[in-house]
Amino acid sequence: MQRLSGFSVSRARDVKNALLFNSFHTQHTFSTAAAESTQESSVGRKFASYTIFKGKAALQAYPILPKFCTTSSGFSRMEKNGVVMLVFWPAIGTRKYDWEKKQYFALSPTEVGSLVSLGPSDSCEFFHDPSMKSSAEGQIKKSLTIAPANGQSGYYANLSVMNNLTKTNERLTVAITKAEFSVLRTACSYVLPHIMGWDQVIGQEKQTQPKPGVDRPHPEFEWSR
Amino acid sequence: MQRLSGFSVSRARDVKNALLFNSFHTQHTFSTAAAESTQESSVGRKFASYTIFKGKAALQAYPILPKFCTTSSGFSRMEKNGVVMLVFWPAIGTRKYDWEKKQYFALSPTEVGSLVSLGPSDSCEFFHDPSMKSSAEGQIKKSLTIAPANGQSGYYANLSVMNNLTKTNERLTVAITKAEFSVLRTACSYVLPHIMGWDQVIGQEKQTQPKPGVDRPHPEFEWSR
Amino acid sequence: MQRLSGFSVSRARDVKNALLFNSFHTQHTFSTAAAESTQESSVGRKFASYTIFKGKAALQAYPILPKFCTTSSGFSRMEKNGVVMLVFWPAIGTRKYDWEKKQYFALSPTEVGSLVSLGPSDSCEFFHDPSMKSSAEGQIKKSLTIAPANGQSGYYANLSVMNNLTKTNERLTVAITKAEFSVLRTACSYVLPHIMGWDQVIGQEKQTQPKPGVDRPHPEFEWSR
Amino acid sequence: MQRLSGFSVSRARDVKNALLFNSFHTQHTFSTAAAESTQESSVGRKFASYTIFKGKAALQAYPILPKFCTTSSGFSRMEKNGVVMLVFWPAIGTRKYDWEKKQYFALSPTEVGSLVSLGPSDSCEFFHDPSMKSSAEGQIKKSLTIAPANGQSGYYANLSVMNNLTKTNERLTVAITKAEFSVLRTACSYVLPHIMGWDQVIGQEKQTQPKPGVDRPHPEFEWSR
Repeated sequence: MQRLSGFSVSRARDVKNALLFNSFHTQHTFSTAAAESTQESSVGRKFASYTIFKGKAALQAYPILPKFCTTSSGFSRMEKNGVVMLVFWPAIGTRKYDWEKKQYFALSPTEVGSLVSLGPSDSCEFFHDPSMKSSAEGQIKKSLTIAPANGQSGYYANLSVMNNLTKTNERLTVAITKAEFSVLRTACSYVLPHIMGWDQVIGQEKQTQPKPGVDRPHPEFEWSR
Repeated sequence: MQRLSGFSVSRARDVKNALLFNSFHTQHTFSTAAAESTQESSVGRKFASYTIFKGKAALQAYPILPKFCTTSSGFSRMEKNGVVMLVFWPAIGTRKYDWEKKQYFALSPTEVGSLVSLGPSDSCEFFHDPSMKSSAEGQIKKSLTIAPANGQSGYYANLSVMNNLTKTNERLTVAITKAEFSVLRTACSYVLPHIMGWDQVIGQEKQTQPKPGVDRPHPEFEWSR
Repeated sequence: MQRLSGFSVSRARDVKNALLFNSFHTQHTFSTAAAESTQESSVGRKFASYTIFKGKAALQAYPILPKFCTTSSGFSRMEKNGVVMLVFWPAIGTRKYDWEKKQYFALSPTEVGSLVSLGPSDSCEFFHDPSMKSSAEGQIKKSLTIAPANGQSGYYANLSVMNNLTKTNERLTVAITKAEFSVLRTACSYVLPHIMGWDQVIGQEKQTQPKPGVDRPHPEFEWSR
Repeated sequence: MQRLSGFSVSRARDVKNALLFNSFHTQHTFSTAAAESTQESSVGRKFASYTIFKGKAALQAYPILPKFCTTSSGFSRMEKNGVVMLVFWPAIGTRKYDWEKKQYFALSPTEVGSLVSLGPSDSCEFFHDPSMKSSAEGQIKKSLTIAPANGQSGYYANLSVMNNLTKTNERLTVAITKAEFSVLRTACSYVLPHIMGWDQVIGQEKQTQPKPGVDRPHPEFEWSR
């Protein structure tokens, strides 16, 4: 338990979404902060993902919304951006997968930006430490590589999880076809302004002021930006 | 009737949308599952499509929303993704088309991803079996090919429906201009996150927590993702 | 009056939006159909456009929503697609423009598709007859050309209106910079699914069925599309 | 105070958003117009931004909605377009930044169009005068340059603020990686139709007329645009 006490809130959300997604218990214990986070009701919440099943592993992606908080001035601002959550879990037979062995990797807005701008021969690599800024910092190292497959027919997504305590290094690789990557790119481009909270700024009360405006277009309009 | 008893739910939806779309009866009989699906009220539902009329056939495209179900835990998750439905039907004279002879082809999210990422000299081909996983599996084979026209001025969409029982093979071909394909690409890119259900995840109740937040931007914010 | 009795509904909408946009009367008289259309209340309606003022003329663009009608079966379907309306009007001095001399050109979804897919050295041309399918067919011919400017620094939009009755041929040309075209492209791509009515199909009541779903991702999910 | 009496409304909004964003007072005094603008309640408003912290300065971007006004005819039209606000402020140590020294630069829709269409080797430059059309016109000159970094690995954003009264010239430079620029491009493309007010035109009441429509697709539909 001690080992996980510094689990970042991000990690807590991972666990929560795992609970949201399946009913059986995970093998993880987690910190007070994480437990609190789990108390939020999931009743009425909606869940949708995009899943790719391949020979050696499966990959699932889904968005998580940002969190806003109310400031002392009465307005609210984004406290924590949303993410695109990636979940990898291994195959254990033909069309059989072990969901218990799943690994999470939460893409920040900038990492999503990197993914959606990936050219056909580009690759990217992200490093995460789920215990960053805690006493457990550095004990678990996650890295995600997305690299082009031969002949630019798609990409390989490779997740590596190095655990210094258990001395294990898990690797999960999923081939992503051009069509599947197009789905991820399109869905991630759509979701990016939402995990940044910009849709909530844009969607707020749109009031019309009662003062009559000029009815005719005028070039000055252009300059008064 | 026996022959169609294994009709997939997807096929049932096809029929339902056909009913939604026109008032006369189709020539198909369908299974219990399909009939149940048709019982959903269509009153108040909205229907809009994009249709291309060409010399030998017409092509229509429209989106169908995903279905969500409530789990025992009280939250809901996507049970069945949406599709972009394509309908082909033949011309029987100048500007006359036989809607009775229409053929459906439902594009999954990944197939939509393939369509929207098609380069000017790329082609794609999809195979569907409307009776998959039923006793009738393999009796009807549908394939859709989208291939570039000469001079990269657009594409040809070719639907082939092979029926092993009636020993027929219908072919319907529609030329799609560059402008028309741009409409399909733009509309399908727009609709893709919706048929994946991601808009419903994103659009759900956006609560603001009452705890006052830091009012000043801080670099730590960047790292605490 | 006779001459204009066959004015298409599209033309009526043009006039209506002109009324919506400015308060003074236009020089046109129009048919009964057009007058009926004008009876719709504009109270509470919102209007926003993008306007480019150049030396010889100005160009304004704004979206007009599609119209839906209720069928006998109780559902509603798109009766008339929306458009992106373009308005050209001439300069009559330094930063002075004659709004009375405005000319309309309504882009259909396919024409919008053509515009948004225009490469830096591509051009497109559209022909409209505002009196099509009336006795006045062919008397007025409008054509819009969008062609690349020198050095791929933008485009020229050229509207030509030939009137066989008045033996006049008006030409209005507006240079569109790369940045301005990027605004038009982005805004038109955004608006395209909306003038096609697809947003209304997508935005309708999203029900969740009460039957408990499978909580665990499964490869079968992939095949049952 | 005199010096700032001509502050444009755009500038006033800058100040207002500064207030919205942090609680301490700014060093600026501002005109009556600006003060009025500040009286709008910020209670319940939402704020979200995208911030890049680099060695010498930080850059923040967030959208500001357009303003609509009601005309004498009862409909409302956009009076003032929205902007994408950029804020630059300098570093004063390792991961320490001086928010008091922030500088604003509000991107108009056309400037946003320029930004989102920037190719990997393109650059753009914008000039603003916050006191334009006032007696203070020309006293402060702001220019923003976005130019490609070496090896097309991203861009440099350079803000220069020349003040003729204080004889100062401040320069703030932030390196933007390819991934960060992809976030800005995607978020700005998303937000562009919203700062143009097109979403409000599109989102208004979507009525369905009660007259029964034709249930069968027909080629005429194509021509009656």
